[in-house]
Amino acid sequence: MKNQSQPLHKSYLILITMLVASAVSGCSTANKDPLPSWNDGPNKQAILDFVKRTTDKEGSSYLPVEDRIAVFDNDGTLWSEHPLYFQLAFAIDRIKALAPKHPEWRSKQPFKAVIENDKEALLASGEHGLVKLIMASHAGMTTTEFEQTVQDWVSTAKHPSTNHLYTEMVYQPMLELLEYLRSAEYKTFIVSGGGVEFMRPWTQQVYGIPPEQVVGSSIKTKFEVRNGQPVIVKLPEIDFIDDKEGKPVGIHKFIGKRPVAAFGNSDGDLAMLQWVSKGEGAEKDKTLALIVHHTDGEREWAYDRESHIGTLDKALDEALSSDWIVADMKKDWKAIYPFEIK
Amino acid sequence: MKNQSQPLHKSYLILITMLVASAVSGCSTANKDPLPSWNDGPNKQAILDFVKRTTDKEGSSYLPVEDRIAVFDNDGTLWSEHPLYFQLAFAIDRIKALAPKHPEWRSKQPFKAVIENDKEALLASGEHGLVKLIMASHAGMTTTEFEQTVQDWVSTAKHPSTNHLYTEMVYQPMLELLEYLRSAEYKTFIVSGGGVEFMRPWTQQVYGIPPEQVVGSSIKTKFEVRNGQPVIVKLPEIDFIDDKEGKPVGIHKFIGKRPVAAFGNSDGDLAMLQWVSKGEGAEKDKTLALIVHHTDGEREWAYDRESHIGTLDKALDEALSSDWIVADMKKDWKAIYPFEIK
Repeated sequence: MKNQSQPLHKSYLILITMLVASAVSGCSTANKDPLPSWNDGPNKQAILDFVKRTTDKEGSSYLPVEDRIAVFDNDGTLWSEHPLYFQLAFAIDRIKALAPKHPEWRSKQPFKAVIENDKEALLASGEHGLVKLIMASHAGMTTTEFEQTVQDWVSTAKHPSTNHLYTEMVYQPMLELLEYLRSAEYKTFIVSGGGVEFMRPWTQQVYGIPPEQVVGSSIKTKFEVRNGQPVIVKLPEIDFIDDKEGKPVGIHKFIGKRPVAAFGNSDGDLAMLQWVSKGEGAEKDKTLALIVHHTDGEREWAYDRESHIGTLDKALDEALSSDWIVADMKKDWKAIYPFEIK
Repeated sequence: MKNQSQPLHKSYLILITMLVASAVSGCSTANKDPLPSWNDGPNKQAILDFVKRTTDKEGSSYLPVEDRIAVFDNDGTLWSEHPLYFQLAFAIDRIKALAPKHPEWRSKQPFKAVIENDKEALLASGEHGLVKLIMASHAGMTTTEFEQTVQDWVSTAKHPSTNHLYTEMVYQPMLELLEYLRSAEYKTFIVSGGGVEFMRPWTQQVYGIPPEQVVGSSIKTKFEVRNGQPVIVKLPEIDFIDDKEGKPVGIHKFIGKRPVAAFGNSDGDLAMLQWVSKGEGAEKDKTLALIVHHTDGEREWAYDRESHIGTLDKALDEALSSDWIVADMKKDWKAIYPFEIK
C-alpha cells in the first residue's frame, strides 16, 4: 500500500484534470468528426473553418458568444418540402376532419378541392386559397388547443412517399450542423415562411430548438377571459408573413440583431442571406451563408429554378457570385434522413 | 512524507469534489443570500420558496428547465418611470436635436410643445401626440443608425431628479432577482410596453438580458438594398403595442409558451399576470406573480391608483384577491438603486 502512494497521487491528479475538463467543456469532441454525414470536401471544410475561426479567441475573426447567432430556414433546409409543404398536408387533413361540420365547404373553393382530393383545383386556388385553408384550420381555437392538434398530427401523420412520420424526414447532415454550432456556443434559430405555431410544438424535440427561438409566419391572436379562464384565441387574420423580404424584417423583429450565419434553400431565403452576409456591419470572415441545393432525385427530390415549391433561381445566381456555400445534397451528404443510418 | 500520504489522499478527494462541484454548478451560492437587498419577510420568503420548489427534482412542483421562463415588465418594474417614461425623455431629446431641420414643427403640436418645454400642452396632446413624437424620433433611419442613437443617449443623458444616467436608475433588488432566477436556470425576458428597439441596445449590459429576449412595442420596418448595401429601414407606422391585453399576445407571439413567473407594477401588466398565473395549464404551485408597489416617496416615488403614469388599480385588487406577491418598495427593499450601495 505504501509503495502505491506516489502513483496514487498522480492518478488522482489525472482524474482531477479529466473530471474538471469534462465538467467545464460539457463534452470532449476533440477527436470526433462533428459532421459525420457530410462528405469531406471544400463545403464541409468551409463550415469547419468558419466555426474554428469565429471561436478562436486569438484570431482576428473571433466572435463573442452573444454574437453567435445562426438562422435556419425550415422547409427544404431542415426537412423536406415535397410533394407539398408539410404544413399544407396538415391543413388538408384538418379541413377533411372539420368538413362534416361545414357542409358549405362542399361547394366552396378551395375547400371543395380538398374534400374531393382535386389537386389541380387546389393548386389553381393559388396562394390566396392556401392561406384560406390555413386560416380555416386554425380559427376560433385557443392556442393550447391548436398546439395539441399539431402534436397529435405530427405524431401520427405519415408522408405519402416514404410512409415515415413527417418529423422523421429531417436532414441528418443539418441536425449534425445544428448540434455542432450549438457545441460552439452558437444560438440556433429557425426563420421560416411556415406558421410559427405549426413548428413550435415539436422543434425542441426534433431540432433541439426551443419555441422562443422559432420565427415564422403568424396569424393574429386575442387575449380574453372565458368563464374565468384566461385564454389566447386565434383570429382569422394574417399577422405577419415571414418570407422573402419579410425574413430580415422577422429577424429584426424577433431576434433584434443581425445573425452571423444563415442557411436556406430557396429564393424565399435570398433577403435573409443578403442581410446576414452583407448587411450593415457584416464582415466577410465573420459570416457564413449556405444554400442547400436539392440535387438528389433518388434519395430526395431534385429541383431548383423551375420548381413551384422551393424555387431556387435568383438566390442560386447570387450564391455563385457571392461565394456562398452551395451544399450539393447528392455530392455532399452521405445520408439524407436519420432513418437511413439507424 | 509517508505519514502524510493518507491525509493527502483525503485532501485530494476534497479538492476533486470542490473543483468538480464548482465547475458543474458554475458558482457556489450555498451559504450566500441571493437577494441581499430584500428585507427578510414573507415576500422574500415566497420568492425563495418558489425557486426552491420548482427546481427540486424530487418535489411535486418541479419544472423542467425548458419551462422555466420568467417575464418582467420594464418601466416601473426594473427601472423608474417618473417624472415621465424614460423613453419619452429620449423622444423629447431627439425632437429637440432634429428641430433645426424641421422648421414646420415650430407651429405644429406636439412638436411645438416639446421645443417650447410646454409640459402642459405636451400632456394635452395625449397618447396620440406621444406616439407621433416617438414616430418622428425613429422615422427614415436604418435600424443600425437608430441603435447608435439610443446607445449615445443612454450613455450621456441624465435623469432630472437624481442626475444619474437613466440606466443607473434600475432597481437593485430586481437585478438580484434576475440573477437569482438565472442561477436557477430560469430564462429571463422583458415584456414591456416600451419600444423594443429603445431597450435592446442596452438590456444585455444593464440587466443581463440579450436582445432576443426583449419583447416590446414596435414600429414597422422594411428590408431594402440601398446602393448595394442591405439595410432595414424604420417606417412611420405602428406594428404592435405590447401593453395590457397585448402583453399575453406578445408573449405568445415572441416566446411561444406560457411563462411560469411574471413581474409587473401596473394595470398594463394585469393581463400578463393573469395569463401567467391562471392561463390554460397553469398550476398554482408552479407559478409566481409579483407586483412592485411604489410606496416609497422618499427614496423613489409613491403612487398607485390615481397616478397617470404606472396606474396600479385593478391589478392591485386582483393581486390582493389572488394571493400574488405585492412587493412594498418601502418595506421590502433595503436599497432601491445600485448607486446607493456602492
